[in-house]
Amino acid sequence: MHQGDSYYTLKGYSILENPQVTTAMEDYLEMLCRLEKELKPLRVNYIAALLHVRPSSASRMINNLRSHGFVDFEKYGIITLTDKGRELGEYFLFRHEALHRFFCFINHSDNELEQVEKVEHFIDRRTILHIVEFMNNILS
Amino acid sequence: MHQGDSYYTLKGYSILENPQVTTAMEDYLEMLCRLEKELKPLRVNYIAALLHVRPSSASRMINNLRSHGFVDFEKYGIITLTDKGRELGEYFLFRHEALHRFFCFINHSDNELEQVEKVEHFIDRRTILHIVEFMNNILS
Repeated sequence: MHQGDSYYTLKGYSILENPQVTTAMEDYLEMLCRLEKELKPLRVNYIAALLHVRPSSASRMINNLRSHGFVDFEKYGIITLTDKGRELGEYFLFRHEALHRFFCFINHSDNELEQVEKVEHFIDRRTILHIVEFMNNILS
Repeated sequence: MHQGDSYYTLKGYSILENPQVTTAMEDYLEMLCRLEKELKPLRVNYIAALLHVRPSSASRMINNLRSHGFVDFEKYGIITLTDKGRELGEYFLFRHEALHRFFCFINHSDNELEQVEKVEHFIDRRTILHIVEFMNNILS
Protein backbone atom coordinates (compact mmCIF):
# COMPACT_ATOMS: atom_id res chain seq x y z
CA MET A 1 0.00 0.00 0.00
CA HIS A 2 1.37 3.38 -0.93
CA GLN A 3 -0.13 6.66 0.13
CA GLY A 4 2.79 8.89 -0.77
CA ASP A 5 2.60 12.07 1.21
CA SER A 6 -1.16 12.00 1.74
CA TYR A 7 -2.58 12.22 5.22
CA TYR A 8 -5.26 9.82 6.33
CA THR A 9 -7.11 9.54 9.61
CA LEU A 10 -6.57 6.34 11.60
CA LYS A 11 -10.02 5.12 10.60
CA GLY A 12 -9.05 5.75 6.98
CA TYR A 13 -6.05 3.47 7.34
CA SER A 14 -8.17 0.72 8.89
CA ILE A 15 -10.56 0.80 5.97
CA LEU A 16 -7.70 0.82 3.47
CA GLU A 17 -6.16 -2.26 5.08
CA ASN A 18 -9.48 -4.11 5.37
CA PRO A 19 -8.26 -5.91 8.47
CA GLN A 20 -9.73 -9.35 9.01
CA VAL A 21 -7.82 -9.62 12.26
CA THR A 22 -9.05 -7.00 14.73
CA THR A 23 -7.03 -5.75 17.68
CA ALA A 24 -9.23 -7.83 20.01
CA MET A 25 -8.55 -10.96 17.95
CA GLU A 26 -4.84 -10.17 18.21
CA ASP A 27 -5.10 -9.91 22.01
CA TYR A 28 -6.88 -13.26 22.22
CA LEU A 29 -4.44 -15.05 19.92
CA GLU A 30 -1.49 -13.65 21.85
CA MET A 31 -3.06 -14.77 25.13
CA LEU A 32 -3.90 -18.26 23.80
CA CYS A 33 -0.37 -18.68 22.51
CA ARG A 34 1.12 -17.53 25.83
CA LEU A 35 -1.08 -19.97 27.79
CA GLU A 36 -0.20 -22.83 25.45
CA LYS A 37 3.53 -22.17 25.96
CA GLU A 38 2.95 -22.15 29.73
CA LEU A 39 1.04 -25.45 29.44
CA LYS A 40 -2.03 -23.77 30.94
CA PRO A 41 -5.58 -24.86 30.07
CA LEU A 42 -7.13 -23.09 27.10
CA ARG A 43 -10.71 -22.78 28.36
CA VAL A 44 -13.22 -20.00 27.70
CA ASN A 45 -13.93 -19.22 31.36
CA TYR A 46 -10.26 -19.10 32.27
CA ILE A 47 -9.47 -16.80 29.33
CA ALA A 48 -12.42 -14.56 30.18
CA ALA A 49 -11.12 -14.20 33.74
CA LEU A 50 -7.58 -13.38 32.53
CA LEU A 51 -8.81 -10.75 30.06
CA HIS A 52 -11.38 -9.33 32.50
CA VAL A 53 -14.30 -9.87 30.14
CA ARG A 54 -17.59 -11.76 30.52
CA PRO A 55 -17.51 -15.45 29.57
CA SER A 56 -20.16 -14.70 26.92
CA SER A 57 -17.84 -12.11 25.32
CA ALA A 58 -14.91 -14.52 25.38
CA SER A 59 -17.10 -17.23 23.93
CA ARG A 60 -18.22 -14.97 21.09
CA MET A 61 -14.61 -14.08 20.31
CA ILE A 62 -13.48 -17.71 20.37
CA ASN A 63 -16.27 -18.54 17.90
CA ASN A 64 -15.07 -15.69 15.75
CA LEU A 65 -11.50 -17.01 15.86
CA ARG A 66 -12.80 -20.47 14.96
CA SER A 67 -14.70 -19.09 11.96
CA HIS A 68 -11.40 -17.62 10.75
CA GLY A 69 -9.63 -20.95 11.18
CA PHE A 70 -7.40 -19.80 14.05
CA VAL A 71 -8.70 -22.19 16.74
CA ASP A 72 -10.60 -25.45 17.12
CA PHE A 73 -12.85 -26.64 19.92
CA GLU A 74 -12.38 -30.00 21.55
CA LYS A 75 -14.49 -31.84 24.09
CA TYR A 76 -15.19 -30.22 27.48
CA GLY A 77 -14.77 -26.66 26.12
CA ILE A 78 -11.06 -26.96 25.53
CA ILE A 79 -9.68 -24.67 22.81
CA THR A 80 -6.72 -25.58 20.62
CA LEU A 81 -4.79 -23.31 18.29
CA THR A 82 -4.62 -24.36 14.65
CA ASP A 83 -1.24 -24.10 12.93
CA LYS A 84 -2.40 -20.86 11.33
CA GLY A 85 -3.59 -19.48 14.69
CA ARG A 86 -0.39 -20.51 16.44
CA GLU A 87 1.81 -18.92 13.78
CA LEU A 88 -0.05 -15.63 14.17
CA GLY A 89 -0.16 -15.86 17.98
CA GLU A 90 3.57 -16.50 18.09
CA TYR A 91 4.19 -13.42 16.01
CA PHE A 92 2.03 -11.34 18.38
CA LEU A 93 3.98 -12.68 21.36
CA PHE A 94 7.28 -11.96 19.61
CA ARG A 95 6.06 -8.42 18.77
CA HIS A 96 4.96 -7.88 22.36
CA GLU A 97 8.30 -8.98 23.80
CA ALA A 98 10.29 -6.96 21.25
CA LEU A 99 8.35 -3.79 22.01
CA HIS A 100 8.53 -4.32 25.76
CA ARG A 101 12.30 -4.66 25.53
CA PHE A 102 12.52 -1.54 23.38
CA PHE A 103 10.26 0.68 25.51
CA CYS A 104 12.05 -0.39 28.68
CA PHE A 105 15.30 0.65 27.00
CA ILE A 106 14.01 3.99 25.74
CA ASN A 107 12.18 4.87 28.99
CA HIS A 108 14.88 3.57 31.38
CA SER A 109 12.24 1.40 33.01
CA ASP A 110 11.53 -2.24 33.71
CA ASN A 111 7.78 -2.23 33.15
CA GLU A 112 6.25 -0.79 29.98
CA LEU A 113 3.26 -3.09 29.72
CA GLU A 114 0.74 -0.26 29.47
CA GLN A 115 2.66 1.51 26.66
CA VAL A 116 3.21 -1.78 24.81
CA GLU A 117 -0.41 -2.84 25.04
CA LYS A 118 -1.62 0.49 23.70
CA VAL A 119 0.74 0.49 20.75
CA GLU A 120 1.53 -3.06 19.69
CA HIS A 121 -1.38 -3.46 17.26
CA PHE A 122 -0.21 -0.51 15.20
CA ILE A 123 3.47 -1.26 14.67
CA ASP A 124 4.03 -3.03 11.37
CA ARG A 125 6.08 -6.20 10.89
CA ARG A 126 8.94 -4.46 9.10
CA THR A 127 9.34 -1.96 11.95
CA ILE A 128 9.26 -4.76 14.56
CA LEU A 129 12.07 -6.60 12.77
CA HIS A 130 14.14 -3.41 12.57
CA ILE A 131 13.55 -2.68 16.26
CA VAL A 132 14.77 -6.19 17.12
CA GLU A 133 17.82 -5.70 14.89
CA PHE A 134 18.51 -2.32 16.53
CA MET A 135 18.19 -3.74 20.06
CA ASN A 136 20.46 -6.67 19.22
CA ASN A 137 23.08 -4.27 17.83
CA ILE A 138 22.90 -1.90 20.77
CA LEU A 139 23.17 -4.69 23.33
CA SER A 140 25.93 -6.61 21.53
CA MET B 1 -2.97 5.49 34.66
CA HIS B 2 0.34 5.98 36.40
CA GLN B 3 -0.76 8.84 38.62
CA GLY B 4 2.31 8.64 40.81
CA ASP B 5 4.60 9.18 37.84
CA SER B 6 6.02 12.70 37.79
CA TYR B 7 6.05 12.81 33.99
CA TYR B 8 2.29 12.86 34.10
CA THR B 9 2.28 16.18 35.92
CA LEU B 10 3.78 18.01 32.91
CA LYS B 11 1.83 20.98 31.64
CA GLY B 12 -0.98 19.91 29.42
CA TYR B 13 -1.21 16.42 30.78
CA SER B 14 -4.82 16.76 31.83
CA ILE B 15 -5.78 17.89 28.34
CA LEU B 16 -3.52 15.42 26.55
CA GLU B 17 -4.83 12.42 28.40
CA ASN B 18 -8.42 13.58 28.20
CA PRO B 19 -10.35 10.60 26.86
CA GLN B 20 -12.75 13.04 25.22
CA VAL B 21 -10.05 13.80 22.65
CA THR B 22 -10.44 10.99 20.13
CA THR B 23 -7.82 9.89 17.62
CA ALA B 24 -9.81 11.63 14.87
CA MET B 25 -9.85 14.89 16.86
CA GLU B 26 -6.08 14.53 17.27
CA ASP B 27 -5.66 14.13 13.49
CA TYR B 28 -7.74 17.25 12.82
CA LEU B 29 -5.96 19.39 15.41
CA GLU B 30 -2.59 18.30 14.07
CA MET B 31 -3.67 19.11 10.51
CA LEU B 32 -5.13 22.51 11.51
CA CYS B 33 -1.93 23.40 13.35
CA ARG B 34 0.22 22.35 10.37
CA LEU B 35 -1.88 24.43 7.96
CA GLU B 36 -1.74 27.43 10.28
CA LYS B 37 2.06 27.23 10.40
CA GLU B 38 2.16 27.01 6.60
CA LEU B 39 -0.14 30.06 6.38
CA LYS B 40 -2.66 27.96 4.48
CA PRO B 41 -6.42 28.61 4.69
CA LEU B 42 -8.24 26.73 7.46
CA ARG B 43 -11.46 25.89 5.63
CA VAL B 44 -13.69 22.83 5.98
CA ASN B 45 -13.62 21.79 2.31
CA TYR B 46 -9.86 22.12 2.06
CA ILE B 47 -9.34 20.08 5.23
CA ALA B 48 -11.79 17.41 4.06
CA ALA B 49 -9.84 17.06 0.80
CA LEU B 50 -6.51 16.79 2.62
CA LEU B 51 -7.82 14.14 5.02
CA HIS B 52 -9.71 12.23 2.30
CA VAL B 53 -13.06 12.52 4.09
CA ARG B 54 -16.43 13.95 3.01
CA PRO B 55 -16.98 17.68 3.69
CA SER B 56 -19.96 16.71 5.89
CA SER B 57 -17.68 14.54 8.05
CA ALA B 58 -15.12 17.31 8.33
CA SER B 59 -17.85 19.79 9.19
CA ARG B 60 -19.17 17.51 11.95
CA MET B 61 -15.69 17.14 13.37
CA ILE B 62 -15.00 20.88 13.29
CA ASN B 63 -18.26 21.44 15.19
CA ASN B 64 -17.14 18.83 17.68
CA LEU B 65 -13.78 20.59 18.10
CA ARG B 66 -15.61 23.88 18.58
CA SER B 67 -17.84 22.40 21.27
CA HIS B 68 -14.65 21.35 23.09
CA GLY B 69 -13.23 24.88 22.81
CA PHE B 70 -10.39 23.90 20.44
CA VAL B 71 -11.47 26.02 17.45
CA ASP B 72 -13.63 29.02 16.56
CA PHE B 73 -15.45 29.83 13.35
CA GLU B 74 -15.07 33.18 11.67
CA LYS B 75 -16.89 34.65 8.71
CA TYR B 76 -16.82 32.86 5.34
CA GLY B 77 -16.28 29.43 6.92
CA ILE B 78 -12.77 30.15 8.11
CA ILE B 79 -11.66 28.14 11.17
CA THR B 80 -9.25 29.50 13.78
CA LEU B 81 -7.51 27.56 16.53
CA THR B 82 -8.08 28.72 20.10
CA ASP B 83 -5.03 28.93 22.38
CA LYS B 84 -6.08 25.61 23.93
CA GLY B 85 -6.51 24.02 20.48
CA ARG B 86 -3.18 25.39 19.25
CA GLU B 87 -1.31 24.13 22.32
CA LEU B 88 -2.69 20.65 21.78
CA GLY B 89 -2.18 20.77 17.99
CA GLU B 90 1.42 21.84 18.46
CA TYR B 91 2.05 18.88 20.71
CA PHE B 92 0.53 16.51 18.13
CA LEU B 93 2.72 18.07 15.44
CA PHE B 94 5.79 17.73 17.66
CA ARG B 95 4.87 14.11 18.41
CA HIS B 96 4.37 13.42 14.71
CA GLU B 97 7.74 14.90 13.70
CA ALA B 98 9.56 13.11 16.54
CA LEU B 99 8.10 9.74 15.56
CA HIS B 100 8.72 10.30 11.87
CA ARG B 101 12.37 11.06 12.59
CA PHE B 102 12.62 7.97 14.78
CA PHE B 103 10.91 5.53 12.39
CA CYS B 104 12.99 6.82 9.45
CA PHE B 105 16.08 6.12 11.57
CA ILE B 106 14.98 2.65 12.67
CA ASN B 107 13.71 1.59 9.21
CA HIS B 108 16.57 3.18 7.19
CA SER B 109 13.96 5.05 5.21
CA ASP B 110 12.94 8.61 4.38
CA ASN B 111 9.17 8.20 4.45
CA GLU B 112 7.42 6.59 7.41
CA LEU B 113 4.22 8.57 7.25
CA GLU B 114 1.94 5.53 7.26
CA GLN B 115 3.66 3.91 10.26
CA VAL B 116 3.64 7.21 12.16
CA GLU B 117 -0.03 7.95 11.52
CA LYS B 118 -1.08 4.50 12.67
CA VAL B 119 0.88 4.64 15.88
CA GLU B 120 1.15 8.26 17.02
CA HIS B 121 -2.11 8.33 19.00
CA PHE B 122 -0.93 5.51 21.23
CA ILE B 123 2.55 6.65 22.21
CA ASP B 124 2.43 8.48 25.52
CA ARG B 125 4.07 11.84 26.19
CA ARG B 126 6.78 10.40 28.41
CA THR B 127 7.85 7.98 25.65
CA ILE B 128 7.83 10.78 23.05
CA LEU B 129 10.16 12.90 25.19
CA HIS B 130 12.50 9.94 25.68
CA ILE B 131 12.52 9.18 21.95
CA VAL B 132 13.45 12.81 21.24
CA GLU B 133 16.20 12.63 23.85
CA PHE B 134 17.47 9.37 22.35
CA MET B 135 17.49 10.75 18.80
CA ASN B 136 19.29 13.92 19.91
CA ASN B 137 21.95 11.81 21.64
CA ILE B 138 22.42 9.45 18.73
CA LEU B 139 22.74 12.27 16.20
CA SER B 140 24.99 14.47 18.33
